[in-house]
Amino acid sequence: QDYGIPFAVVGDCTGETFYNFAELRCQSCGASQTGSSDGLSCDCASGFKLVSDSGGIDITCEACANNEVTTSDGKNCIPCESGVPNPVTRTCPCNEGEITVEYEEDGSLLDSSQCLPCVATTEPDIEGSECVFCHQSFVDASADCDCPPPYEQSGGICFSSGDLLQTLPSDYNVPFESIGDDSGFASWFFIEYYSAAEALCRLYKNLTACQLLSNQCVMVDYNQDDYGTTCDAYIEIRDGFSSSNAYDIPDWPSNMPWLYYTDDVEQVLTESTIQTSFRTNTSSEQSMLNIFVAEYNATGSFLGLHPAENGKLQLCPDTTEKLNAAYQFGTTYSSSCTIPSRSFWDVYKTAFFDSYIHYVDLNGNEKLYPIPVLVDNYKENGVFVNQMAVQRDWQLTRRFFLVDNVSGKTAVDSPARYVRYASDIEFQITLQSEEGEARNGKIYPPLLKIKYSELSQENDYAGATSARINFKVTYTMDQAGGQRAMSISLGVLSALAALYGLLKSNAWRRRSGLIYIDIKTMFKFVAFTFGLLGNVFFAVIFCYSLYWLLFFKKQDVFNVVLPTRIQESAFIAYVVMAFIFKGFDVLHLFAVQCTTDIFLIDWERSRGRLVQANDSTVSKGNQAPISIWRTYFVANEWNELQATRKSHVGLQLLTTLFLLEVIGLVHLTTTDPVGSVTPDPNAYYGNYDVILRFGVASGIYLIIGIVQWIFFTFVYERFVEDSLQNFVDLCSMANISVFILSANNYGHYIHGRSVHGFSDTNMKEMRAQLKREEENLVGQRGLLPSTDQQTFEVLLQNKFRENYDRILQPLNLTRAEQQRANQAQSNRTGTKVDTSLEAYATMNKFLSAFIDHGMRDIDYIVKDKLLFEKLLDMEFYDPMDKGFVFNDDGHSFDQVIFFGHESTLLLFELLLFCVVDLIFQNYLMAGIVTFIASMFVSKIRGSLGRYNLAKKTLVDERFLI
Amino acid sequence: QDYGIPFAVVGDCTGETFYNFAELRCQSCGASQTGSSDGLSCDCASGFKLVSDSGGIDITCEACANNEVTTSDGKNCIPCESGVPNPVTRTCPCNEGEITVEYEEDGSLLDSSQCLPCVATTEPDIEGSECVFCHQSFVDASADCDCPPPYEQSGGICFSSGDLLQTLPSDYNVPFESIGDDSGFASWFFIEYYSAAEALCRLYKNLTACQLLSNQCVMVDYNQDDYGTTCDAYIEIRDGFSSSNAYDIPDWPSNMPWLYYTDDVEQVLTESTIQTSFRTNTSSEQSMLNIFVAEYNATGSFLGLHPAENGKLQLCPDTTEKLNAAYQFGTTYSSSCTIPSRSFWDVYKTAFFDSYIHYVDLNGNEKLYPIPVLVDNYKENGVFVNQMAVQRDWQLTRRFFLVDNVSGKTAVDSPARYVRYASDIEFQITLQSEEGEARNGKIYPPLLKIKYSELSQENDYAGATSARINFKVTYTMDQAGGQRAMSISLGVLSALAALYGLLKSNAWRRRSGLIYIDIKTMFKFVAFTFGLLGNVFFAVIFCYSLYWLLFFKKQDVFNVVLPTRIQESAFIAYVVMAFIFKGFDVLHLFAVQCTTDIFLIDWERSRGRLVQANDSTVSKGNQAPISIWRTYFVANEWNELQATRKSHVGLQLLTTLFLLEVIGLVHLTTTDPVGSVTPDPNAYYGNYDVILRFGVASGIYLIIGIVQWIFFTFVYERFVEDSLQNFVDLCSMANISVFILSANNYGHYIHGRSVHGFSDTNMKEMRAQLKREEENLVGQRGLLPSTDQQTFEVLLQNKFRENYDRILQPLNLTRAEQQRANQAQSNRTGTKVDTSLEAYATMNKFLSAFIDHGMRDIDYIVKDKLLFEKLLDMEFYDPMDKGFVFNDDGHSFDQVIFFGHESTLLLFELLLFCVVDLIFQNYLMAGIVTFIASMFVSKIRGSLGRYNLAKKTLVDERFLI
Repeated sequence: QDYGIPFAVVGDCTGETFYNFAELRCQSCGASQTGSSDGLSCDCASGFKLVSDSGGIDITCEACANNEVTTSDGKNCIPCESGVPNPVTRTCPCNEGEITVEYEEDGSLLDSSQCLPCVATTEPDIEGSECVFCHQSFVDASADCDCPPPYEQSGGICFSSGDLLQTLPSDYNVPFESIGDDSGFASWFFIEYYSAAEALCRLYKNLTACQLLSNQCVMVDYNQDDYGTTCDAYIEIRDGFSSSNAYDIPDWPSNMPWLYYTDDVEQVLTESTIQTSFRTNTSSEQSMLNIFVAEYNATGSFLGLHPAENGKLQLCPDTTEKLNAAYQFGTTYSSSCTIPSRSFWDVYKTAFFDSYIHYVDLNGNEKLYPIPVLVDNYKENGVFVNQMAVQRDWQLTRRFFLVDNVSGKTAVDSPARYVRYASDIEFQITLQSEEGEARNGKIYPPLLKIKYSELSQENDYAGATSARINFKVTYTMDQAGGQRAMSISLGVLSALAALYGLLKSNAWRRRSGLIYIDIKTMFKFVAFTFGLLGNVFFAVIFCYSLYWLLFFKKQDVFNVVLPTRIQESAFIAYVVMAFIFKGFDVLHLFAVQCTTDIFLIDWERSRGRLVQANDSTVSKGNQAPISIWRTYFVANEWNELQATRKSHVGLQLLTTLFLLEVIGLVHLTTTDPVGSVTPDPNAYYGNYDVILRFGVASGIYLIIGIVQWIFFTFVYERFVEDSLQNFVDLCSMANISVFILSANNYGHYIHGRSVHGFSDTNMKEMRAQLKREEENLVGQRGLLPSTDQQTFEVLLQNKFRENYDRILQPLNLTRAEQQRANQAQSNRTGTKVDTSLEAYATMNKFLSAFIDHGMRDIDYIVKDKLLFEKLLDMEFYDPMDKGFVFNDDGHSFDQVIFFGHESTLLLFELLLFCVVDLIFQNYLMAGIVTFIASMFVSKIRGSLGRYNLAKKTLVDERFLI
Repeated sequence: QDYGIPFAVVGDCTGETFYNFAELRCQSCGASQTGSSDGLSCDCASGFKLVSDSGGIDITCEACANNEVTTSDGKNCIPCESGVPNPVTRTCPCNEGEITVEYEEDGSLLDSSQCLPCVATTEPDIEGSECVFCHQSFVDASADCDCPPPYEQSGGICFSSGDLLQTLPSDYNVPFESIGDDSGFASWFFIEYYSAAEALCRLYKNLTACQLLSNQCVMVDYNQDDYGTTCDAYIEIRDGFSSSNAYDIPDWPSNMPWLYYTDDVEQVLTESTIQTSFRTNTSSEQSMLNIFVAEYNATGSFLGLHPAENGKLQLCPDTTEKLNAAYQFGTTYSSSCTIPSRSFWDVYKTAFFDSYIHYVDLNGNEKLYPIPVLVDNYKENGVFVNQMAVQRDWQLTRRFFLVDNVSGKTAVDSPARYVRYASDIEFQITLQSEEGEARNGKIYPPLLKIKYSELSQENDYAGATSARINFKVTYTMDQAGGQRAMSISLGVLSALAALYGLLKSNAWRRRSGLIYIDIKTMFKFVAFTFGLLGNVFFAVIFCYSLYWLLFFKKQDVFNVVLPTRIQESAFIAYVVMAFIFKGFDVLHLFAVQCTTDIFLIDWERSRGRLVQANDSTVSKGNQAPISIWRTYFVANEWNELQATRKSHVGLQLLTTLFLLEVIGLVHLTTTDPVGSVTPDPNAYYGNYDVILRFGVASGIYLIIGIVQWIFFTFVYERFVEDSLQNFVDLCSMANISVFILSANNYGHYIHGRSVHGFSDTNMKEMRAQLKREEENLVGQRGLLPSTDQQTFEVLLQNKFRENYDRILQPLNLTRAEQQRANQAQSNRTGTKVDTSLEAYATMNKFLSAFIDHGMRDIDYIVKDKLLFEKLLDMEFYDPMDKGFVFNDDGHSFDQVIFFGHESTLLLFELLLFCVVDLIFQNYLMAGIVTFIASMFVSKIRGSLGRYNLAKKTLVDERFLI
């Protein structure tokens, strides 16, 4: 069964057909019938009267006699009183000014259709069936429906001579910008209504006429210059009645609209009359901006005083919930859309609005407070004063429209040639500038900023273009206090940082054995200070962002609103600077760590001379070689340790992303006072705020970083694996000490001398050694007898360093020569290797002897650091005679590897994360970039460190895998 | 200046005040004036006539004489013709059936207000100022405006006796479910209209009356059982006119609505008349479902034939763009919202709809195709047949409503006690079941499923509750073909996998030296097969999802739509199964890798006897110990290598997330044909589809995995660092071979014998060795002379394994004893350590001798693997006499560490990622879980491997750091 039916709509049924709405098709009407005006049924043709109509598809019509016509209700036939009916229209002819009468007043049919002239003060209505009264002004003028000279007729009213003072200049044009050349064009609306409205308003204070006149002034953007006729008229009338004002407001003439503000702009915008203390609690009455608009149509009729909710002022369609979110106090609202240009002709009606904000005064009375309007297009002496930055020059006004498709008309029923619409609307709410509690959620009068744009019928209606609409609600407050606080704390802390940098560079100077401050110390000062400034900047902006996060999102009464984009720029600059400082700090860390001097002291002594079993000449046996493999092993482990991080970056980032994006903490960063992590998909939420994003991200990042640090320090390293301790143990078992100089005279020492005296042996003995240690049958591992202290900070005298350098000298020479040799395309020669090996042996001996107190002139004492020395990470005494070896906390040597600088690296990554997020507003992107950057940093550190280690310990890179 | 003004609206101005809309306040009218009905101006009080009104706030009124009243237009005073005016209302008293006449027909004022009786066929209108005609039926009955017995009046019409055949049963109730007890309640709408409508429709085919009657049938859910009076009446009238049908459709009586389908349901729903071939291109006409609805109000008036767009059928408010997305073909649309219950009383009007889909037939004619409606609430003999799964029992209908707040009324102007509304609406579109191209985007008739719910005034209006509304458009097609294809390919491939698993377990049996298939082999078979099944399942579901991704998103003409939730369940099951299989595979991998036998062969021989320099007794010198540190070093490196992955999991996941979420490939997974990665925030997109999510995620994951593999294999390992090669080099330099047995008789061998003969020496000699190798002064490192081949697969004879086990026996014994010893709380004794060390030494000797061909009865030959052996990863010949040592590709030993199983691990992680995403529909969450799982797997593998390594090589765990 094919159920398909032809498609037809009512409009398709023309002529003698009607639309059968039960079957959705056109059907022919019966004989002498014709389709009704709505097309849904049949009527009798003219000259026929309706006999029966049961509501079905068939009606019965009966022809009237030839000299008869059908009555206007179609139910009867009637002859004409005077003459024969018009044979074409089948109506009785009547003269102008006459009406046709077919029935008695009691409903009985007359014998014939009569023509009846109307009496003087009446005239026939449009259908010609009744006499209606003329306007009183005509009656007054002529006791008739005429307006004889010297009376003048305008706008359907008859004015006495001289009443129509103001006439539109003959060359009056509406100044549509799109036309260009300021030529404008003659507007039907102005020509039709201006004169009458002006006269009625001036003479009689006709309420509607005054509104109409004012609307005409609003239509030309309050222009008082070239096209100011209407506005001039308004002002003249207003000033003429200056004695009588509405509500004692001087700018508001009684019984007329209020268009212009004459008060000082700043004063108007800092009135503190509005008593509402706005709250965040969405169930409270005081959480909404209660905007009301008084609405008038173009011709001045009052359409009501409505709340602005449900999109009254928003041209962009959306769900009611989202539209109304615009007036949720504290929610920075922004919506924009494109609308087909044709809607401005076909859909929207022209209406004018006066906006008010509703509040309750101290006595509990409901009040309205007028909202001033700043029309972007307003011109004064050819200058767009409202586009200026200086408030003083602004001209505040009152009335505005959303769409004006009336002023562009050239005739009453032609579509407008030009349409003007409010393309940008912004409610700007400013919190009162009391500090803190005193503010108590109170606002100054809102300011409504409007920008009008134009569309032309030629281009936009015909071209079916689209128009962009923006609607915003923004909140501002005086942020000077917060900014100042931030600047001051930054200043003070930066000064402290510089001081501490000075201290640190001085400590470094001592550690480097420099007596005077030289250029290198200056560099160091800059480097240290940059690092500290990074911390200081981060601390300040972090506190600042936390402040906003807590105070904005957690407030009950609105005491703060978020900084605007412009107010945020300082914050953004500080974030970027903190990142750059921290970047320098990490570079500095690289530079220091990748040039550290390190040497592995092998304590192993040859265990005798080696003879072949069948060799009887003992004296010829060589010294048994000491295997280098223990050194290789230790170097290899050190190499692995170098770029090892204390915390896990991948875990850090993924957990951060998890909390932000999966748990939904990112939803705390919207510019609305809602503090929920599970957003309602149907609700409106503000855009993301830079400061809140920074605050939430860095807060979470820090917390996870700290949790990781606690976990790794107190759980993982204790109960699972402590890489540093493992390394120290390995040194002890391998009978190898690690001697590190991170500055000239300062460094670290890991005492790895085996308690068994030797270690270069087979598995059996190694096992025996391990067992002996487990069973506490041997001494303790410490440098000093009967101690366990194996790790030390060292600060040595210059003499030590001189010796050290002297031993290294051939090594450096060799490298220099190698370079030259390489340039000459020759391979390294055996001799040169020998030089470096000699240096290695010498250094081994030198350092062993030094640790063993084997040199009289270069000696050291072991001591504890003072508390302050520990805290400040510096030494108070210079080693003059003897070097100092300080007991440390067991892992001070992590300072020369990444392990000891977790906080620096974490902060660097955190700031990188935030900076990337600042650019892309995308945490995931930030996480990915940070992860890759951190991998890169580790890789670079690993390979630079490997190179340095190979160079300094003479262990071939092939063993550092 | 305080601009605040009191708040007042028009309604506030009562009594003798009016609302001054220029000042927004109530003002008193002048003397003898009263507020007008709209409240915006003043009228003269009764008994006063209006003298002048300039439109301002002041009008002038003049009192009429005592015996005069004001005319109805307020402009004149007139005495009453008969008697004095009513002193209260100031009107002239007239009798019933009379009208008041104040003016002549020519507009002149009469001398007095006259009362005029209307003639027989007319009656006064409501205002009593004109005589209007009565309904024709009254005139027909009585030639008057009466309806005398035996005539009966109903619905404002006078029926002849007997015309009103059908009267509503006296106990007729509308069966609202909420009332319970099926008691229903008397509905004003039914009582008022039913009889008249039935009679008019039956007698005259009154179009509107037929519609009204039908609407009453629709209001009771087409119920033909208990409350079927209206539906029975409809059916009776329909069957009475059975000879005349609209469009030859038997179910559609002419001039009446079509309510019921009587055709076979399946036949109705598989008609292929609709010619439109729907397309994805959104600019095409054929990309939209052109749904039209014929709309009627409750009393049967036609409201038009409209497109269903702009939310005509959608109660949830939204932007036009999103509302219209519902009819974008192929977009699985779903919207739901809660609406305040009060709207159903206050906002929505009752309307009835007949829905059609618009199409163009082959001749280019526009046609409509009726859409059948399936009302969920329809009852037949007390059974909800439309809720059954069996299509055959369904009753398809035509007409539906969205909101019915009329049938629940008990009086004309009381609000409805119950409201019914369409809480669930679903358009179900089914593609024709032609295969492939033949389908050509054509559909069967859509099916509209509706479920009505009820609200009661008592609970919902008073309680201000909310009602949930769901609107859906779903697309289905016969998926049997695809499902079958998937099942078949799964079946075939699984069989192949089982075969291959058989082959592999057989190979394993040989490698394990087993002659018969025992229970272990069976286990192995299961394990291998599971691993392969994991691959097979993944391959099939991956292809399946790719198919959907490509064919659904890339089609021009709609040939496929996505499977529905139910159709997807098989796919989901397969994904989960693939994951479980792969999980088993990884467990198996763990089990094999963490129990591998491994031994480090130290080739170093003592270099002589050690004597102290001052010792002259050569014979007493001990053998110089061979340092174990090289073994430690190699073991340590092997330990690090164990859990090393070929590719970087963090990078893998972050890149995947980057592509999915930042670049936006996730937007390809929506259930609409849009294939853009940058969604328009204002547009509607379908929900995510499980299959597409799987396809996109696994596709990207695989691609990145492959890119990583290529990068690490061909770039990183060649130009940066090849960990495996480094390890082999280290072995060579350390003079240590690695002997691995992953199965009983099968394993890998890394030949690390130093070309220099010894390696346990000092730095000087090591350097010299390195240099000599660089300068090619020594032999090559290979196992066979003059080869470089250092890595091998080995397949050895049983005899070898017997020896191997025999040597290990004391080790195992020792461990068993240790356990007993531990139970006895005693420490290990030196002797036992010695046993294990002895075993170590013996094993070292045994393996060295074996490699050196030092044993006559246990020997091996070196050969290449056959191509097929390589491809199938098995050996064709059993080693009987001599073991086989196969040359390999240089890294076959990666099979015993993670490095060689990257694909397995990648697939496992991929499936984990997809399974987690399946659960949470959140890629980020999936990424985080996968990352943590992968870290966990690596950690576990690392520590189990470390334990195994320490156990097998006797290297203390302290050296495996």
